[in-house]
Amino acid sequence: MPETFRIGLLGHGTVGSAFAELLAARADQIEAITGLRPELRGVLTRSRGRFDEIVEDADLVVELMGGLDPARDYVLRAMSAGRHVVTANKQLLSQHGEELWAAAREHGVQLRFEAAVAGVVPVIRVLQESLAGAHVDRLHGIVNGTTNFILTRMAETGASYADALAEAQRLGYAEADPTEDVNGKDAAAKMAILARLAFNTPVHLDQVTYEGIEHITADDMEYARDLGLGLKLIGTAERIDSGLSVRVHPAFLYGGHPLASISGPFNAVTIESQAITEITLSGPGAGGPQTASAVLGDVISAMIPPASTPETTERLSVVTDVESAFYLHLEVADRPGVLAQVAQLLGLQGASIRSVVQKGLGENARLVMVTHPILESRFYAAVDLIGGLDFMRSRPRAIRVIDEEFV
Amino acid sequence: MPETFRIGLLGHGTVGSAFAELLAARADQIEAITGLRPELRGVLTRSRGRFDEIVEDADLVVELMGGLDPARDYVLRAMSAGRHVVTANKQLLSQHGEELWAAAREHGVQLRFEAAVAGVVPVIRVLQESLAGAHVDRLHGIVNGTTNFILTRMAETGASYADALAEAQRLGYAEADPTEDVNGKDAAAKMAILARLAFNTPVHLDQVTYEGIEHITADDMEYARDLGLGLKLIGTAERIDSGLSVRVHPAFLYGGHPLASISGPFNAVTIESQAITEITLSGPGAGGPQTASAVLGDVISAMIPPASTPETTERLSVVTDVESAFYLHLEVADRPGVLAQVAQLLGLQGASIRSVVQKGLGENARLVMVTHPILESRFYAAVDLIGGLDFMRSRPRAIRVIDEEFV
Repeated sequence: MPETFRIGLLGHGTVGSAFAELLAARADQIEAITGLRPELRGVLTRSRGRFDEIVEDADLVVELMGGLDPARDYVLRAMSAGRHVVTANKQLLSQHGEELWAAAREHGVQLRFEAAVAGVVPVIRVLQESLAGAHVDRLHGIVNGTTNFILTRMAETGASYADALAEAQRLGYAEADPTEDVNGKDAAAKMAILARLAFNTPVHLDQVTYEGIEHITADDMEYARDLGLGLKLIGTAERIDSGLSVRVHPAFLYGGHPLASISGPFNAVTIESQAITEITLSGPGAGGPQTASAVLGDVISAMIPPASTPETTERLSVVTDVESAFYLHLEVADRPGVLAQVAQLLGLQGASIRSVVQKGLGENARLVMVTHPILESRFYAAVDLIGGLDFMRSRPRAIRVIDEEFV
Repeated sequence: MPETFRIGLLGHGTVGSAFAELLAARADQIEAITGLRPELRGVLTRSRGRFDEIVEDADLVVELMGGLDPARDYVLRAMSAGRHVVTANKQLLSQHGEELWAAAREHGVQLRFEAAVAGVVPVIRVLQESLAGAHVDRLHGIVNGTTNFILTRMAETGASYADALAEAQRLGYAEADPTEDVNGKDAAAKMAILARLAFNTPVHLDQVTYEGIEHITADDMEYARDLGLGLKLIGTAERIDSGLSVRVHPAFLYGGHPLASISGPFNAVTIESQAITEITLSGPGAGGPQTASAVLGDVISAMIPPASTPETTERLSVVTDVESAFYLHLEVADRPGVLAQVAQLLGLQGASIRSVVQKGLGENARLVMVTHPILESRFYAAVDLIGGLDFMRSRPRAIRVIDEEFV
């Protein structure tokens, strides 16, 4: 029997229940990696569980209640009892962070909070660990998925702010009361936490200036497009002379900016430093499973010293013949029936054509197409046959296409 | 006097000397974070230093020699002497990784290697720590900056492969002998390492199929653009039934793919898993300072247990009036001199106009412009005055513009 690692859970809403589910589903893998069996021992909700008993029977406490009270008291008491804490609570950290981090140092426990900012996008870990020795100059973030979804819809469809908000609510990307998302306060709390870590200086939510997106019009989006600009709700933390500016406001970006292509409910953060130029991290910003996954990453980190690359736990066979979509470029003599013959040879191998472009005339025509995914060996068999057709004027050219839909 | 953390350095080429420089520059900050003073005690080059003495006088050994021999022997001997090791050696890890990781576990030391893949893009740490408990389904990467630079130039300028390669060599993005970059072997080594970590299964360089970009023509790029496709050298590692495919080849991407916008010498990796949807990490892939920064992040991680958020080391004042470029939207009566009056009021505050669009006629005209950066208080002072002009038909609308050039 492996040793058990006991986990107590405070809060059992969307994220809490997703975390409990994910922990159960991945217990075997976690045991293989850490040598310890993670076990959810107690859960505190409004109606059941006693805090003291849960802490007593835990090595680590996961706080997913949200809000300041009683979360602050519970986190402090858990740490002073020697328990590691993992939390997703951005309000708590942006207003009482220094007190909590000091308590963690005092009691020699870990306080991890990846899920508090940008969901599963690992910006907390990267700032605290990868960039611990970097001199960060600036950080830009899209850290609120609701507003990014609304702005994306306004840009794509010409919808008004009100209509895009209503759509976000219908699809579950905005709450019934979206105030703190759309007015920038949610993003401000996250920027306070990021600024604290990036610049090693105390930053409280009250010091972050913020402005929301409620006043943005479809008209602005349209004119801005003429100027090559796209609109995002941007959080910024940057050194200004010997001081620091931390702020959240709508801002236009030129197309080449790494955050310009972040669309829908995604989050992203760009960190700039002279030594590293800049790195960008992006991914889904919220959602129960995503946030739960970030919490689980923190729990596992608290279970093991990192970077001891564990023994392999799998023995997967390495496969070489895989499915792919293909771009196929044919130089042909432009005679009747050319496309039909090519399509027939592809069809015999099970390849179907997704799109096709024909250019040129007479002896110099080009037929360029993209297929739907097909096993590579079958596609190349068809291409060999196509290469032998009498109207071909050079060897067929094939290049794979990564054929996926993204938000 | 704080305790010293002793570092031995093997190799003093571009990355090695950049690392030594960065370590000296950041020693104070590292001491503030870790409580230990990092000190470079010995350096091994072809002409000076003795390996045994350097290991004897080190807590951690940084291996930046490259190649298999004698790097493999040195890393093994350093670990069996109880030293942590940080390396950027992709050849070594993709061919002898299991032996090295086993040695690290056996001797209870850390073996860190963030810089071996994608430079300062923290993909190793994210796979090993943030996603330790995730069930990764697939990983796509642009992990060779030379080929991404060449393909970007071919797409942007219509240049041939040979001309784009020559330009890359001239600008220092390609070596005099670029063979292992352009034929895909360099990317294959990196994909072997990433696949090992993502899927917890042994993967050797020899199991990775690869194909390079030497045969790509300007013609392919042009037709593909008609089909909405952009070309990248893509590394893929994915579960296929119960097996695994690891491969590198040129592939077209549709515009919405997170890797489609990665241009120039940048690297990026997208990690897909059901629980997290997908996350993308991007940044500069190579270069002495960037790689050195990744090595330094690993060294600091080996010095401290992570996630103990250290006490703040700075007391930066929080500034609220900062410089920004602005989008300014004015609904005006279209009379002679309107633009001149607006430009004058902006000019009096020091704001200059970068671009302007005028639409509509008569009483319904719109004047939309983007300014160069200006202190916000000065810009808003000008906007207040503009709002009072008699030809204004509604309140001026101002939105910030993030005005930067990116590669």
